[in-house]
Amino acid sequence: MRAIAVERGSEGPTVIERPRPEPADGEALLRTLRVGVDGTDHEVIGGSHGGFPEGEDHMVLGHEAVAVVEDPNGTDLSAGEVVVPTVRRPPAAGANGYFERGEPDMAPDGEYVERGIVGDHGYMAEYFTSPPEYLVAFPEDMWEFGFLTEPVSISEKAFEHAYASRSAFDWSPESALVLGNRSLGLMTLAMLEFGVDSDRSFAEHDFERTYCLGRRERPDPTVDIIEEVGATYVNSNETPLETVSEDFEAMDFVYEATGYAPHAFETVEALAPNGVGALLGIPDSWEFEVDGGRVHHELVLHNKALVGIVNSHVEHFEGAIDTLTELPEWLLDDLVTTVATPEDAKPAFEYGHDQIKAVVEFDRL
Amino acid sequence: MRAIAVERGSEGPTVIERPRPEPADGEALLRTLRVGVDGTDHEVIGGSHGGFPEGEDHMVLGHEAVAVVEDPNGTDLSAGEVVVPTVRRPPAAGANGYFERGEPDMAPDGEYVERGIVGDHGYMAEYFTSPPEYLVAFPEDMWEFGFLTEPVSISEKAFEHAYASRSAFDWSPESALVLGNRSLGLMTLAMLEFGVDSDRSFAEHDFERTYCLGRRERPDPTVDIIEEVGATYVNSNETPLETVSEDFEAMDFVYEATGYAPHAFETVEALAPNGVGALLGIPDSWEFEVDGGRVHHELVLHNKALVGIVNSHVEHFEGAIDTLTELPEWLLDDLVTTVATPEDAKPAFEYGHDQIKAVVEFDRL
Repeated sequence: MRAIAVERGSEGPTVIERPRPEPADGEALLRTLRVGVDGTDHEVIGGSHGGFPEGEDHMVLGHEAVAVVEDPNGTDLSAGEVVVPTVRRPPAAGANGYFERGEPDMAPDGEYVERGIVGDHGYMAEYFTSPPEYLVAFPEDMWEFGFLTEPVSISEKAFEHAYASRSAFDWSPESALVLGNRSLGLMTLAMLEFGVDSDRSFAEHDFERTYCLGRRERPDPTVDIIEEVGATYVNSNETPLETVSEDFEAMDFVYEATGYAPHAFETVEALAPNGVGALLGIPDSWEFEVDGGRVHHELVLHNKALVGIVNSHVEHFEGAIDTLTELPEWLLDDLVTTVATPEDAKPAFEYGHDQIKAVVEFDRL
Repeated sequence: MRAIAVERGSEGPTVIERPRPEPADGEALLRTLRVGVDGTDHEVIGGSHGGFPEGEDHMVLGHEAVAVVEDPNGTDLSAGEVVVPTVRRPPAAGANGYFERGEPDMAPDGEYVERGIVGDHGYMAEYFTSPPEYLVAFPEDMWEFGFLTEPVSISEKAFEHAYASRSAFDWSPESALVLGNRSLGLMTLAMLEFGVDSDRSFAEHDFERTYCLGRRERPDPTVDIIEEVGATYVNSNETPLETVSEDFEAMDFVYEATGYAPHAFETVEALAPNGVGALLGIPDSWEFEVDGGRVHHELVLHNKALVGIVNSHVEHFEGAIDTLTELPEWLLDDLVTTVATPEDAKPAFEYGHDQIKAVVEFDRL
């Protein structure tokens, strides 16, 4: 079967041939429909994040997938069912407490592998196998958007942890700012603006005023989406994060998805009293000067919080699926700008000005 | 009556004469027993924190008090009852939502005054008045330690908010580090080491391994207390916070009470995966270089959190009272090293090497 992999020493993704996998006992065989591409894939390709499976000289890419059950192989799944797979799997040493509790997203380094990112092959192949506990049922009529479940699940976790950090008091947030106007930022902005009316989604608040900070100049398709959602676009060339609280307003909630290192500290300044910043972007080491006294002072004197968020687990995937069914369809349509084929996947790995979200389509339902 | 105040232009606290206050309708008259001195008092005296009551050229000091009801004045209180007062009161504009909800500790600047700190006279006087909703009953047989309720209440809030920030997952903390070995640090260390078996206290975990970082060399009475509690003393001259995770272990919980600005960032490094740092010290503006990329990266990739904590409300005072009744009596005895009189309060405002906690005693029960 065809797969898209990164090989040791190569500069970009390559189409390779691999044998179709045989499901082990307790695993189902899945036929891949679509697999999204995100910043983490680019980091994996560039070698700054992740790592090859033990003893292998290549890794199949892809961690944002939607697939259909080809062979249940004795599991409770049904052939033809549409599912999305989670990302983390037990390490070679076997499942640990984090997996047993259903919280592999909280496992530290070395206590997990991540399919398509670190230590295990991903989903960019015609077929893959998985135990059923790592597969979440997805509505058949929306299968084309199923690959968005994984990124949205990270925001579900961000909302859950950020709200938890404010649960010791009566928090009534009104203003929210998303840092970054790529696809996840735009979907998160819509979650903040519209709220999600579902017990499974963690996006429980609908914010009265939402903002999205980016560095693109108009005309730009992401700015159009931001304004169509009903949010305010903050052009960081005119208003850097440092002055957002003066030029617009102090924010009850800040969602940082760019990985630009100074944002962690500028977020503290941008927050209103009692506000929380959720950090999701992952910068590299970078020394710079900061008014650390002021950041520390602001955190304390105004009861502010910062929470770091990585990965997600099954409940976040379930929340994300409810969220996707509630987000306006025009938004999802507008986000998916590039549908590539495995034979010619290159366009999915290029950043074009007009590209928002790219996906490789292996098959259709 | 005698009071201890800071006057505009003066360099230290002064004994002044003021008329004994008349309780307004709905207020009780309190006879002051003891009032503690802490770092905030020194900042108020030095002029770096707080501010005089509107239109006045002096402010009575003191926000850590224990008192006895002299005249209930028609309130539900009984004469002779021992009480501790909370610190925040409504601003001149009147009570707002934060006060109505019982969460004045979450009110932003301008929406409160603080007795003895900003905008209102404190408790260092023979008598003071207060509405009963800001007074919390304290056990009579422990009256001498009642003034410790206010500082411990801040730690109660720190525990509540820190645990809340970790409530979205199964957090089983084992290791805790207190930064700072002054009286509040030592009491907090004991709360972490012993836990508090009370529904009202927020110190719900007892940590298996506790550490306290300070910069004093042995022999030192605070180091003796740290070791008597059963914790490990970390001498920051030998092991700065930056290397604690290597030289000792990464910490599930860090409690920062020194206000040393770099600690906010070094705390992130010192934390174990999924750990939380509670920040309580209040530094001034100070620019310095920091590997901000690494701090940001660590927060995200290991699901870490920082929560800022200021002030406390009635429930935290109630928790603190239960905590004080459970802390070993030798600890409280050893902490209170200086009992000054209002006539000669000077020793209470000096930092001696052997001083841990100082108090001014206006009267005894």
